[in-house]
Amino acid sequence: MYSFKNDYGEGAHPRILNALMETNLVQEDGYGEDSFSKNASELIKAKLGRNDVDVHLLSGGTQTNLIAISAFLRPHEAAIAATTGHIATHETGAIEATGHKVITVETADGKLTPDLVKAVADGHTDEHMVKPKLVYISNSTEIGSIYSKKELQDLRGVCESRGFILFMDGARLGSALCSEENDLNLEDLPGLVDAFYIGGTKNGALLGEALVICRERLKDDFRYHMKQKGALLAKGRLLGIQFQELFRDGLFFELAEHANRMAGLIRNALEKEDTRFLTHSPSNQLFPILSNKLIAELQKKYAFLIWEKVDEHSSAVRFVTSWATKEEAVNELIEDFKRMKL
Amino acid sequence: MYSFKNDYGEGAHPRILNALMETNLVQEDGYGEDSFSKNASELIKAKLGRNDVDVHLLSGGTQTNLIAISAFLRPHEAAIAATTGHIATHETGAIEATGHKVITVETADGKLTPDLVKAVADGHTDEHMVKPKLVYISNSTEIGSIYSKKELQDLRGVCESRGFILFMDGARLGSALCSEENDLNLEDLPGLVDAFYIGGTKNGALLGEALVICRERLKDDFRYHMKQKGALLAKGRLLGIQFQELFRDGLFFELAEHANRMAGLIRNALEKEDTRFLTHSPSNQLFPILSNKLIAELQKKYAFLIWEKVDEHSSAVRFVTSWATKEEAVNELIEDFKRMKL
Amino acid sequence: MYSFKNDYGEGAHPRILNALMETNLVQEDGYGEDSFSKNASELIKAKLGRNDVDVHLLSGGTQTNLIAISAFLRPHEAAIAATTGHIATHETGAIEATGHKVITVETADGKLTPDLVKAVADGHTDEHMVKPKLVYISNSTEIGSIYSKKELQDLRGVCESRGFILFMDGARLGSALCSEENDLNLEDLPGLVDAFYIGGTKNGALLGEALVICRERLKDDFRYHMKQKGALLAKGRLLGIQFQELFRDGLFFELAEHANRMAGLIRNALEKEDTRFLTHSPSNQLFPILSNKLIAELQKKYAFLIWEKVDEHSSAVRFVTSWATKEEAVNELIEDFKRMKL
Amino acid sequence: MYSFKNDYGEGAHPRILNALMETNLVQEDGYGEDSFSKNASELIKAKLGRNDVDVHLLSGGTQTNLIAISAFLRPHEAAIAATTGHIATHETGAIEATGHKVITVETADGKLTPDLVKAVADGHTDEHMVKPKLVYISNSTEIGSIYSKKELQDLRGVCESRGFILFMDGARLGSALCSEENDLNLEDLPGLVDAFYIGGTKNGALLGEALVICRERLKDDFRYHMKQKGALLAKGRLLGIQFQELFRDGLFFELAEHANRMAGLIRNALEKEDTRFLTHSPSNQLFPILSNKLIAELQKKYAFLIWEKVDEHSSAVRFVTSWATKEEAVNELIEDFKRMKL
Repeated sequence: MYSFKNDYGEGAHPRILNALMETNLVQEDGYGEDSFSKNASELIKAKLGRNDVDVHLLSGGTQTNLIAISAFLRPHEAAIAATTGHIATHETGAIEATGHKVITVETADGKLTPDLVKAVADGHTDEHMVKPKLVYISNSTEIGSIYSKKELQDLRGVCESRGFILFMDGARLGSALCSEENDLNLEDLPGLVDAFYIGGTKNGALLGEALVICRERLKDDFRYHMKQKGALLAKGRLLGIQFQELFRDGLFFELAEHANRMAGLIRNALEKEDTRFLTHSPSNQLFPILSNKLIAELQKKYAFLIWEKVDEHSSAVRFVTSWATKEEAVNELIEDFKRMKL
Repeated sequence: MYSFKNDYGEGAHPRILNALMETNLVQEDGYGEDSFSKNASELIKAKLGRNDVDVHLLSGGTQTNLIAISAFLRPHEAAIAATTGHIATHETGAIEATGHKVITVETADGKLTPDLVKAVADGHTDEHMVKPKLVYISNSTEIGSIYSKKELQDLRGVCESRGFILFMDGARLGSALCSEENDLNLEDLPGLVDAFYIGGTKNGALLGEALVICRERLKDDFRYHMKQKGALLAKGRLLGIQFQELFRDGLFFELAEHANRMAGLIRNALEKEDTRFLTHSPSNQLFPILSNKLIAELQKKYAFLIWEKVDEHSSAVRFVTSWATKEEAVNELIEDFKRMKL
Repeated sequence: MYSFKNDYGEGAHPRILNALMETNLVQEDGYGEDSFSKNASELIKAKLGRNDVDVHLLSGGTQTNLIAISAFLRPHEAAIAATTGHIATHETGAIEATGHKVITVETADGKLTPDLVKAVADGHTDEHMVKPKLVYISNSTEIGSIYSKKELQDLRGVCESRGFILFMDGARLGSALCSEENDLNLEDLPGLVDAFYIGGTKNGALLGEALVICRERLKDDFRYHMKQKGALLAKGRLLGIQFQELFRDGLFFELAEHANRMAGLIRNALEKEDTRFLTHSPSNQLFPILSNKLIAELQKKYAFLIWEKVDEHSSAVRFVTSWATKEEAVNELIEDFKRMKL
Repeated sequence: MYSFKNDYGEGAHPRILNALMETNLVQEDGYGEDSFSKNASELIKAKLGRNDVDVHLLSGGTQTNLIAISAFLRPHEAAIAATTGHIATHETGAIEATGHKVITVETADGKLTPDLVKAVADGHTDEHMVKPKLVYISNSTEIGSIYSKKELQDLRGVCESRGFILFMDGARLGSALCSEENDLNLEDLPGLVDAFYIGGTKNGALLGEALVICRERLKDDFRYHMKQKGALLAKGRLLGIQFQELFRDGLFFELAEHANRMAGLIRNALEKEDTRFLTHSPSNQLFPILSNKLIAELQKKYAFLIWEKVDEHSSAVRFVTSWATKEEAVNELIEDFKRMKL
């Protein structure tokens, strides 16, 4: 049984484990004040070409979302998210647990637009309603789509005019930036969003997300929020060493490119077989619509999620590739797909 | 510069890193539903001799404290802790951030007693005050002391009679249980406390605390609370593999014994030199009171915390040993101490 | 300018003010432990024919909703509400501020149905999502509709089968119960819902809602929650005296009947003029759809809300009647309506 | 049985009830946007001689404390209070329920001093601890003492130098300002504290506290916080009318003076009888230490609180006077005291 269920099914890229081995007995300060974390932060800043951002290393996406959003907002302020947004559906009310409403907006492709944001802003008029303040987007989105530079520029425009904070969940940022359809660079982000994070967990690390805070007024006392929410690891080095390894050369991007390439092989093969997809996804998550019969056949050899029922005879499923996905497994899947489809 | 600052200055015990290496490419389910985490849970239950407890693996102490306590309490209920308790002082108000007051009690040795708990209970009489509900203790405590079996039995008695939950922070439980003065066994704990955790971070793991919930009514839906607070790691295997390694044979206890033995060497040497200690500590943290002059000399070669000022001429410092502390470094410290003291 | 903006535009029914006058210098205990509050509670229980319910007097609807819901739920549990539900839209995220998500459901008429509730329940499957636990309904709803006994029985059925709490916001319960289309009695409610409140503020009191907790396990320590959220009034007598007056004979119902009768006059008159309504409302709030021209004319003499734009030429407006609405004013409105419509 | 238990045992001053009567049928906007509330705000600003403050009317002290403090603080920031402070002991953890720690400080007289505040500030050094940010004081304090102008100036100094917010709970501000020992004027307060409130509930109103926000950056969006916490009364006029009456001439001060005068009669009489007091109280709360025998005798005719046990034979009790305390009752108490003491 080979798994295409997600991009966190294996451990870490071997270079990361090696780096942990090699540094293991170096004595370091705790709670993120070790030299590895500092160096990782510097490498990320250098890659961004910016010295005026703050970088914090956290354990996972939900943790990063809840700490950043609750640190950035006052009690009566709310986040705006697509109904498919991770904070809206798959984080067990983590944002609400910090006291903030998540205002959800229906979208076709998982992406927010200036018009959608404006409509929410215009619909919240006085103190009997929450005050929308933060726009939460994911790139790539939970359904595989990605934002173009122009789309982000437009969102930034509306956020600036309304005084909103633009926050990007980058749990799968690597895959988005390495997509063939992408026209964004990592170094564009500080000019476009107020804070974002670079996902390590789903791109080859054991765990870890690097939050980048770009706007000056959002930086203050951020480590207090991390500690208060249980996110300062005593051995913060564990995060530092990993991001150091991912960013000391191009490993972060290499891993994402591999994942995307594997997804591309599947996508192309399925398209050739006239498979429809639930969404247009140029990243490492694919949502083909398959007959229930074919799904049952594939399940005998492969693990993957059934995403949603489409009609009586078919459902959309999710195939995810990662840094660890083996090309032989992909080829076998493709061959099996063709064969079983008959 | 050798560090006695804390017990999380190095990485992980080599066996743990090896286990991560060996299992690295095994595909597993995420979020703690991997076979390693399940196996670690089984090993801990077997060691406890109990099948009726729930085991959850979390990243760190503050995270475990805040999730357990907020899951166990209703909004108007409060925790009772020693003023030295970690939740009372060094977790940035993490418990209060979940809505609960921490009622603090002065103690000489960092340990709560039945009389102290009763006094709090008796002083909270109606709905104009919070309702004390959970008794938080640490073993070993933040100042190195440990609880005897009798002391825990007595605390349990008062908790039962008042309907209180007894919760043990075991960030340094290994050191407590392996202390020469200890008369508790790990397997005694489910009979004495309602929930406790077994600290991995400070006893040889990269990160990880194993929370054991012993009381039936505290178990429900605990994974929801973990997810909501950002504690379910996508690669939960990282925690499972480590606790599997710590508990598949006696590694957990071996590491704590080493730390204690190193502390014992220092303690004995200092006592021979007529050094006074701030507290009686039979575990891996020592709080000797040294002259400021000696402290300044020692700081040239060793890293350690200055704990508190005692008088104009002296302060208490903290020396911490760990699984990784080298016996040669300890011997050198002892020699330096004798020499510098002159 | 006569106002049909809302049902809280005037003070209190004169009998209530008189009761405040007459009791003014009686010395009483504070914080709801006065004899008036106790008596009010007894009167309500007698009217309900139930001694096994708890009655608490609170200041307003948002306060009552947030305290009851946060007292009833554990941190990971969520409320289900119609998108039009007051807690979902017009309480500034009060529920979220206590840590709980409000899951919203689109409805045509502001009322939840078993199927809508089941769909939410079925869509929330594991610990990555909140756990739906409380069904929030309003009667009458925010858009004037009311629940029939059968509808409540059906909702109760699904709540029982799913382990959900059924909670009724009764800010306008008087108007619902006195509607011509109503087949519910106040005394039916403890058998149908787990908790509900009887709105005083919008039915002749200066302020006050009487929360009735029917289910045993929801009762514990409720006054702690009230105090913690700032709802225990030092002079709780102010609430007690008012509810005593409303329930010592049928005043509560008389006032609601008057409001409904006034609304009925307007409804009938408008229907005769072939006015369409946004919603079917048999209670004291009416939502006729009027031409913008007519609205502009009416605004010269009357205050009322413009509820929502319907098309380029017309909008729905809201007319609300109350215990204090004068029949002459209603008649004048009707005459003006006929005249201006031409 | 005559009660000296508290200053909220009766209803409201008759002028207030009359004002409610007279305005009863005037139609007004809801939620504090009525003309009475606006006028009350203007009267208070005029009395303060300041147009640059914001005034908000709330229902009670706990509500005001929790809304103001949670609106003013970010999540990791904490309040400093005397251990006797109302928020520290008698508000059921209301501040903690909004997520903020209350750091308590032992004091002899219920008053904070610059040195006490500095010690807390100096003891909170990094992100492992909360960040002290708001200094909470009560005037008069919970044990009857009052602040002099010099004391407030000194506190303000330390708050300014540390960047702290100085917040005054004025539930009994009237009694403090009308004390014979007082040298403060109401109009001094905006120059000394960042926010404070003028207590109505304990000074002749049915309910109501007027919060005055003096510092510009604390003003934003305050009504959102009020609504979110359930404090915007639909019939906000109820608060407006009362404060209008209290401040349209000197009624507020007259009532406090009466309460103080009644307390003075008791204080003088008891001092003549060589009674010791637990605290020096120049305001409307007295804490004489009486023999248990005398207490038992007095309890036959009078209601009052037993405050705390002093030794085997005696306890401190609390006598409170108010706007409604009758001079005949005071005289009778004094006579009884003399007689029973023998």
